[in-house]
Amino acid sequence: MKVVKVGLLGLGTVGGGTVNVLERNIEEISRRCGYQVQVVKASARNINAARICRTDAIQLTDDSNEVINDPSIQIIVELMGGHEPAKSLILEAFKQGKHVVTANKALIAVHGNELFAAAAKNNVTLAYEAAIAGGIPIVKAIREGLSANKIEWLAGIINGTGNFILTEMRNKGSAFEDVLKQAQALGYAEADPTFDVEGIDAAHKLCILASLAFGMPLNFNAVYTEGISGVTPLDVTYAEELGYRIKHLGIARQNPNGVEMRVHPTLIPEKVLIANVDGVMNAVMANGNAVGSTMYYGPGAGADATASAVVADIVDICRQLDSSASSHVPALGFLSDKLETPAIVPIMDVRTAFYLRLSVQDKPGVLAAITAILATNEISMEAVLQKEPKQQGADAQIILMTNTVTEKSLLLALNEIESLDSCNGPAIRIRVESLQEDT
Amino acid sequence: MKVVKVGLLGLGTVGGGTVNVLERNIEEISRRCGYQVQVVKASARNINAARICRTDAIQLTDDSNEVINDPSIQIIVELMGGHEPAKSLILEAFKQGKHVVTANKALIAVHGNELFAAAAKNNVTLAYEAAIAGGIPIVKAIREGLSANKIEWLAGIINGTGNFILTEMRNKGSAFEDVLKQAQALGYAEADPTFDVEGIDAAHKLCILASLAFGMPLNFNAVYTEGISGVTPLDVTYAEELGYRIKHLGIARQNPNGVEMRVHPTLIPEKVLIANVDGVMNAVMANGNAVGSTMYYGPGAGADATASAVVADIVDICRQLDSSASSHVPALGFLSDKLETPAIVPIMDVRTAFYLRLSVQDKPGVLAAITAILATNEISMEAVLQKEPKQQGADAQIILMTNTVTEKSLLLALNEIESLDSCNGPAIRIRVESLQEDT
Repeated sequence: MKVVKVGLLGLGTVGGGTVNVLERNIEEISRRCGYQVQVVKASARNINAARICRTDAIQLTDDSNEVINDPSIQIIVELMGGHEPAKSLILEAFKQGKHVVTANKALIAVHGNELFAAAAKNNVTLAYEAAIAGGIPIVKAIREGLSANKIEWLAGIINGTGNFILTEMRNKGSAFEDVLKQAQALGYAEADPTFDVEGIDAAHKLCILASLAFGMPLNFNAVYTEGISGVTPLDVTYAEELGYRIKHLGIARQNPNGVEMRVHPTLIPEKVLIANVDGVMNAVMANGNAVGSTMYYGPGAGADATASAVVADIVDICRQLDSSASSHVPALGFLSDKLETPAIVPIMDVRTAFYLRLSVQDKPGVLAAITAILATNEISMEAVLQKEPKQQGADAQIILMTNTVTEKSLLLALNEIESLDSCNGPAIRIRVESLQEDT
Repeated sequence: MKVVKVGLLGLGTVGGGTVNVLERNIEEISRRCGYQVQVVKASARNINAARICRTDAIQLTDDSNEVINDPSIQIIVELMGGHEPAKSLILEAFKQGKHVVTANKALIAVHGNELFAAAAKNNVTLAYEAAIAGGIPIVKAIREGLSANKIEWLAGIINGTGNFILTEMRNKGSAFEDVLKQAQALGYAEADPTFDVEGIDAAHKLCILASLAFGMPLNFNAVYTEGISGVTPLDVTYAEELGYRIKHLGIARQNPNGVEMRVHPTLIPEKVLIANVDGVMNAVMANGNAVGSTMYYGPGAGADATASAVVADIVDICRQLDSSASSHVPALGFLSDKLETPAIVPIMDVRTAFYLRLSVQDKPGVLAAITAILATNEISMEAVLQKEPKQQGADAQIILMTNTVTEKSLLLALNEIESLDSCNGPAIRIRVESLQEDT
């Protein structure tokens, strides 16, 4: 059996998982790709740290350049995370004719255009299946599996931490802060949870998914991003009463005026399958103009699940090693000289339905005043719930579901509503997506 | 832009869909694969029949050999169905160095080993994404996306007709026969529905999925197959009361004694995502020892959805055209000389939990007698429901959920139970699968 030698940059959770999966499944993997895949070198900040994998057959170093410069290594796996030195090391690996596999979503989202161009120039592959939705082969599904389609839209639960928090808030009626603490204790959330709960991690992934779907260069700064820290148990309950679940979705959509890219809490009808994806699991719906709606579901994180994607990329590269150095599948699914740059639709022009919750004085005429404002702004309603205050003198709650409306029109109307004397404090608003074929 | 010429064998639903998708998405497709894909010739039994696609740019013939023998054609798409003449035509196409794309599940399941060997010998590709689960890229997901894994088991709703019938039976409480008539009226079921409702179509697909998952030659005759014509609304209701849904599943599983391959009605806990896949939709769960549980969901049939998979295979072939003639991904995911032939576990040795329904005389001691027999046969129970007769003198119903037990042990116990004087008629039994990681 032929041997292919692999070098790892980073030997933490995913690095250790990669070593473990390659060792545990060495037989299946070599039966699939025709190569015995050997990790021969790995760099780590502290080479004496405890590991989740065996390292006796691996030469450890704290100098990543030693891994890059080893002439016996054909494939570099970058699992350091962050922008630098990961980016420079990858560029150097390309120069030396090495293929690179990465799980680094921030790097691809922000520097992917430059990196893919450099890989193409050096006739090598930069593979990144593990960067999105962990073990779910979503890059492959969109880039190859749905290649016959014009992708109309996609919507994904692509951050496991956020989905765990929203699921627990629903199951236990707990507040965001309490579930966050629990998630931190369980290791599902970082000590600084900003990246996950404020949607930055999801925005990185959505940016990549949108480019794959629509054939456009990566444009991370254009993603509109809202986190879940403002979601309350009250809204989770009222959404439920209306037949909806609240999920943190990344949404990319073709729109007559360009492309929408947005990450925000979203109400989804409970009958839609993705509304039932709970806990730390991820799922991505992709809607193509030939296939219709498809969905891809699985674990979005974890050592072995992410390693599953890393190793699948290694197998893909091995399957190409004998023919030509670079992969025959373009990095973003479309030929690099055929990428197009559509307009990005600003969030103010995006049309969605809205869930609105208003805290109001408990007196006659308030609902009438609110609905009058909505009517003059040409916003129609799907549903209204009115909740009496629990104790006398407290606020009543009015919950409204609007039909689809532009963000701008809604904000204008809300501005009027919030200036009513009877309306206390700003409205809670959460976007609603039906995720049906034609939405 | 380079041009690749395609010839179709068969211009019915999927053939027409393929022409339409290639025409509608010509821009996306050529941006993805670097070729303008042109259907130049198509064979059809009756070249004057009405079509769902435009045919002005396509030369029609009733002689399939004319398509195969056209030297300008590089890719043949076989959409005739059935074993012959499809098989002979494909073999002839290989001899002429042409790649072949097919949606023919029966052909692959029964003659795939011979066909893949012939393709390899001629250094061409035989692609068959459309043969399983319509538009869902499930072949790609298992063969490439999960290549790092030892696949432990997979379970799929892979026949849309059957799933539509079971969904309607649940939603409306209707009998199998009535829903079948409705499905036939809607065009979801054939005039002769045997292939779909008796599980033969699902067995073809399961056979292919099992070979992909486990790296073994296709072995259609080894698939144990049971249809859904015996499922009654009563069992659907009782299953629901116990927290389960009845689905027609194809299941392939690694077992210490070999491989299980079986298609049968199955109770699934309603909390498992696949239990909520309704109507004509398909879904396949695949559980790998690195990734854990993943699921792939989408339309399993229809002109455009199936064409989505056919055209994705064409794009894959185009992406390889410039390097070497044959695909670098082995036909069954494992190198052909590394396929292994595990023992097939006979259904009698398969362990599952069981749902049992017994019609019994409405008198004291019957349940005790039944549970005593189960106990002596070392079969323990998860749940018992006892339903009084609706009118006096009619049978009572006893519903039992057992723990996992071999089919053989269960049948021995049932034999004893059915010979009790108080037991009227044979037991209804439906297998139960929890579809959790460790099952």
